[in-house]
Amino acid sequence: MIIVTKAGATREDIDHIRERVESLGLRTHLSVGEHRTIIGCVGDEARLQSIPLLSIPGVEAVHEVLKPYKLASREFSGGETRIPLGHGEIGPDGFSVIAGPCSVEGFDMMQSTARHVSASGAAGVRGGAFKPRSSPYSFQGLGEEGLRILAAVREETGLPVVTEVMDTRQVELVAGYADVLQIGARNMQNFALLTEVGRLHRPVLLKRGMSATIKDLLLAAEYVMSQGNMQVILCERGIRTFETATRNTFDLAAIPVLKRETHLPVFADPSHAGGSRALVPPLSYAAAAAGADGLLVEVHPDPERATSDGDQSLSFSEFEALMNGLTPFVEAVGRAVATAV
Amino acid sequence: MIIVTKAGATREDIDHIRERVESLGLRTHLSVGEHRTIIGCVGDEARLQSIPLLSIPGVEAVHEVLKPYKLASREFSGGETRIPLGHGEIGPDGFSVIAGPCSVEGFDMMQSTARHVSASGAAGVRGGAFKPRSSPYSFQGLGEEGLRILAAVREETGLPVVTEVMDTRQVELVAGYADVLQIGARNMQNFALLTEVGRLHRPVLLKRGMSATIKDLLLAAEYVMSQGNMQVILCERGIRTFETATRNTFDLAAIPVLKRETHLPVFADPSHAGGSRALVPPLSYAAAAAGADGLLVEVHPDPERATSDGDQSLSFSEFEALMNGLTPFVEAVGRAVATAV
Amino acid sequence: MIIVTKAGATREDIDHIRERVESLGLRTHLSVGEHRTIIGCVGDEARLQSIPLLSIPGVEAVHEVLKPYKLASREFSGGETRIPLGHGEIGPDGFSVIAGPCSVEGFDMMQSTARHVSASGAAGVRGGAFKPRSSPYSFQGLGEEGLRILAAVREETGLPVVTEVMDTRQVELVAGYADVLQIGARNMQNFALLTEVGRLHRPVLLKRGMSATIKDLLLAAEYVMSQGNMQVILCERGIRTFETATRNTFDLAAIPVLKRETHLPVFADPSHAGGSRALVPPLSYAAAAAGADGLLVEVHPDPERATSDGDQSLSFSEFEALMNGLTPFVEAVGRAVATAV
Amino acid sequence: MIIVTKAGATREDIDHIRERVESLGLRTHLSVGEHRTIIGCVGDEARLQSIPLLSIPGVEAVHEVLKPYKLASREFSGGETRIPLGHGEIGPDGFSVIAGPCSVEGFDMMQSTARHVSASGAAGVRGGAFKPRSSPYSFQGLGEEGLRILAAVREETGLPVVTEVMDTRQVELVAGYADVLQIGARNMQNFALLTEVGRLHRPVLLKRGMSATIKDLLLAAEYVMSQGNMQVILCERGIRTFETATRNTFDLAAIPVLKRETHLPVFADPSHAGGSRALVPPLSYAAAAAGADGLLVEVHPDPERATSDGDQSLSFSEFEALMNGLTPFVEAVGRAVATAV
Repeated sequence: MIIVTKAGATREDIDHIRERVESLGLRTHLSVGEHRTIIGCVGDEARLQSIPLLSIPGVEAVHEVLKPYKLASREFSGGETRIPLGHGEIGPDGFSVIAGPCSVEGFDMMQSTARHVSASGAAGVRGGAFKPRSSPYSFQGLGEEGLRILAAVREETGLPVVTEVMDTRQVELVAGYADVLQIGARNMQNFALLTEVGRLHRPVLLKRGMSATIKDLLLAAEYVMSQGNMQVILCERGIRTFETATRNTFDLAAIPVLKRETHLPVFADPSHAGGSRALVPPLSYAAAAAGADGLLVEVHPDPERATSDGDQSLSFSEFEALMNGLTPFVEAVGRAVATAV
Repeated sequence: MIIVTKAGATREDIDHIRERVESLGLRTHLSVGEHRTIIGCVGDEARLQSIPLLSIPGVEAVHEVLKPYKLASREFSGGETRIPLGHGEIGPDGFSVIAGPCSVEGFDMMQSTARHVSASGAAGVRGGAFKPRSSPYSFQGLGEEGLRILAAVREETGLPVVTEVMDTRQVELVAGYADVLQIGARNMQNFALLTEVGRLHRPVLLKRGMSATIKDLLLAAEYVMSQGNMQVILCERGIRTFETATRNTFDLAAIPVLKRETHLPVFADPSHAGGSRALVPPLSYAAAAAGADGLLVEVHPDPERATSDGDQSLSFSEFEALMNGLTPFVEAVGRAVATAV
Repeated sequence: MIIVTKAGATREDIDHIRERVESLGLRTHLSVGEHRTIIGCVGDEARLQSIPLLSIPGVEAVHEVLKPYKLASREFSGGETRIPLGHGEIGPDGFSVIAGPCSVEGFDMMQSTARHVSASGAAGVRGGAFKPRSSPYSFQGLGEEGLRILAAVREETGLPVVTEVMDTRQVELVAGYADVLQIGARNMQNFALLTEVGRLHRPVLLKRGMSATIKDLLLAAEYVMSQGNMQVILCERGIRTFETATRNTFDLAAIPVLKRETHLPVFADPSHAGGSRALVPPLSYAAAAAGADGLLVEVHPDPERATSDGDQSLSFSEFEALMNGLTPFVEAVGRAVATAV
Repeated sequence: MIIVTKAGATREDIDHIRERVESLGLRTHLSVGEHRTIIGCVGDEARLQSIPLLSIPGVEAVHEVLKPYKLASREFSGGETRIPLGHGEIGPDGFSVIAGPCSVEGFDMMQSTARHVSASGAAGVRGGAFKPRSSPYSFQGLGEEGLRILAAVREETGLPVVTEVMDTRQVELVAGYADVLQIGARNMQNFALLTEVGRLHRPVLLKRGMSATIKDLLLAAEYVMSQGNMQVILCERGIRTFETATRNTFDLAAIPVLKRETHLPVFADPSHAGGSRALVPPLSYAAAAAGADGLLVEVHPDPERATSDGDQSLSFSEFEALMNGLTPFVEAVGRAVATAV
């Protein structure tokens, strides 16, 4: 931690700041400039985080030196995390595409979707049984019936199942059916929920919140990991900005920044980022080119009749074209499309 | 709902769009322009919301006509909602200031805080027992012990208690102690939690999410209200933007916009919006001037030693000065500072 | 300037960094931590700004210590800047309202506007002769004829005239007619234009850019001041965010932050910030309550027939009501409405 | 244009709205709903843009039907615009990389840069002679001497020259030396400058403003084109958001959205978007994968000693590696790297 004093800070102010810092077991070094003094604090920075340094008289600015996350940081790990999924894995060698409808609407549509996306090379199938909807009057999902449908479809196709959990009370239930538990963007800072999934031995797909910084996302992962669950997949899905031509603003640069900061796998969700079917291929190709480890893509047997997110869902033939189109980009980054069956 | 067709939409495209809309029981009216056709859809708009209209061939744009919220809308209610609080009320005649520390740190500090803020004219005391912290390594609150302290302080001072609930499993517990349940900004779209507090007969203070639009905030209130709980207080607390000089960007205009759109009371939280003690008075005065119904303000016996948010907490004397400073602004809008005891 | 090294920085890296810094005449102090070293750089920080410190091997982060603006900074000046305007002044004792139409549309409408706003207590009249319009097909203003109309209206009413200059080639022309030259939000970082108005002896009203930080705004003021023109009025007019319920997001907190950072007067433009007539009064009252030195308000004889910005323009009677409504807020901050005639 | 009335709009309100619209030569169609009436306006929409429709009593919302830009719209043009550059062209078949330092610092560094980037396959050389700097105390460029150096370097290497123009008074001067005139992000809405370069017969590279929507960017291009200059290259260079891990947020989706909306070539600037050398390759690959027509990349002989933007500049060897790395991505989209010599 670095503390910068105000222009008019007195000798007493500076002594007082040093005392506060040193009382926590850290050492201080001064750089006395003409107008301001820089106080370098050396030692266990975490202890300083609980102190409102800016409220101490004479303090103008405080700069963190160490990253606030540890388990999630690249420095912590020997190499990149690999997460087994079905007979395959999510990790640095492959490129895993998880596809399926926004909502589980029934058995037939899930079965046909799973068969088609598997045939096109998907590594998993997604579908929401519990749906976070911004209006209380929108379809909220089939609930446990949806989970049973997902499990039945896995039984038949062998495809691992990714589905969202929204409530601490449902974690056990969802974990009874799902291969990967998804935490949605709106729950990225639902710390009770993060803590609960952190107690499982089951991979967690953590979507970036709409206004979450990359640091916030890594701290959310740290919540899960601090409970013992190291199998976290991060997912960039667009952030909220002033631009209205797309549903969200796809922060592509978050992919290489995350790959530099953390050992965890990084996915992209081109469906939510762009909000439009036509944008899914270019955003997917770009994500692969930028080093993503996989994609989460919305696919529906009949997008025009989907109960949610139809505008951004691919049809089966569009998904097949996407997977074919992806190949050269995936190969150009030295990877191969990963399957799970 | 208004549907605008693409420049090249054919007669068949337009017929297909009309059929889809009319099959849901709505009527359609056409305005045929040189390049595009406008299809006005008249009837129960909610039915259309489940359809991915943009994915129908020939559709270029869709514009909503009706507001997606009903119970929360101004049109729904005969007048402004008044919410009893202690012996007073939150509503259009008064200006209610709820004050206290970010976290309940112990009985003594809560007792002295409640006494002081009550003496200065506060209408309630706040304090967090369960704390949403962005790092898993930060202080997470005293939990149920914190709730017991809050109740003991209410017993003594008579001040109603406002405290946050973060987890669906804790709703009943928190409701056993609190007069008002706070939903924090990070949980504004935790729909399971909104639904759960909607089943109580207890006021809910709903803070705006960092990237929530005003419409999102009203839809979150609608979640609570759709379960039967009409006692929702909205709270503007700053949104996330590119500006870094303040902790968040205080969206002052949200106050008059909300007062126009809804009958619910509207509060402001100058402590989180500005993130700095010095900004609390000007932001508070401005909120009162813009028509807010009250404030949520952080106060601590010794801000420099607060376990959280010390940088933005007022001392007792600063809070007293704030309350004195507020009076002419509150009177200028034809209100009076409301107390609860 | 403070330099923080990477975790793996070597002794040679650190020596190389110090050499680069010391070769520019600054001294360095080291705080050696377990993982990282902090290098405090003491001396003329401006010299370091020209060096790409982050591109030096071993450097992880760089933190500025000194503010990059000097003439605009509060520390530089003995007190608050007062700017004469007509027979009055803009400054800390008064509250100056400059009102008028978005565009000068003709003599009659300007004359009646000036008379009415003067009668209601305005300190100046505004009107655009050169208009920055986002579409090349929109009305671009009357040009020099508009300037002549403004001057004629000043002749008659005595009200000082504020009008925008958009092009370096027009600075001399506009300065021949205007009492205050306005730099619009879109030109806030048109550095050639800032430099040119900096050579005049004429007050400049500098509007904050839509995505300009407070620091950017102060640096833009520094551009003007570095040429010798110290009479700069800053104007908060809303920033661009994700919220679409208002035209822009009025950053109210910028007012007290600017008053703390600089000695220059700070105005607010509630018309552009909110984009709607109904929002002008609450935003104006809030700006006064937060410590602004004045307002820029759009007023039109017949808003429904305005050639631009009619949606956010007040009628004469609405402006009169605004001025009456403002009085208690202005008095509550210890000021008086300032007139110029 | 579509007008939606307020819930309480009267028959007289609606008649008045229709009269205003029809008096401008448009026809109106009504869709009368239970609560609101939709008024479709058919005819020359541009005439309505000058009217403040929202200020007419009874009007709640107004939706545009037609795009506000024409010359720039995809519908206007038969196919994609191709812009000759040296012996090559910018367009849909190739992928053109323009590279060079942020600032022209002298002849030797420009000469060696041009030679190296040409050898690696660049289609043009860039370098700033007039520099927009946020501080008046930073290096402002060599001015006309910089232009002479650029021309001398072109003479020797044959590489076309791209350089920025910041001031209407310099347009003629810069056009006397440059092959492509760049308009920087901060001047994207400097309408006087756009108009002036619109009068030239010289390609213009128009960078997106930091808070400009895609629609704003296309309207800025429309300004240039409305004066007769159809040779406009658009450039995505990152927008301003809350994320601070990167200098700006690279809006990758803007590339496919622009390719759908306009016939103009679309470039990306990975150097400014990411603000860091390490991010240039992944962002470049992603831009190619998403369908960009080319890149603008900062390259410097000795980034650590660059007078500006050194943190984000590539060295010669890094640029060579970038060009080699790009090839498979460019080929995967069916293009070939375009050269100019």
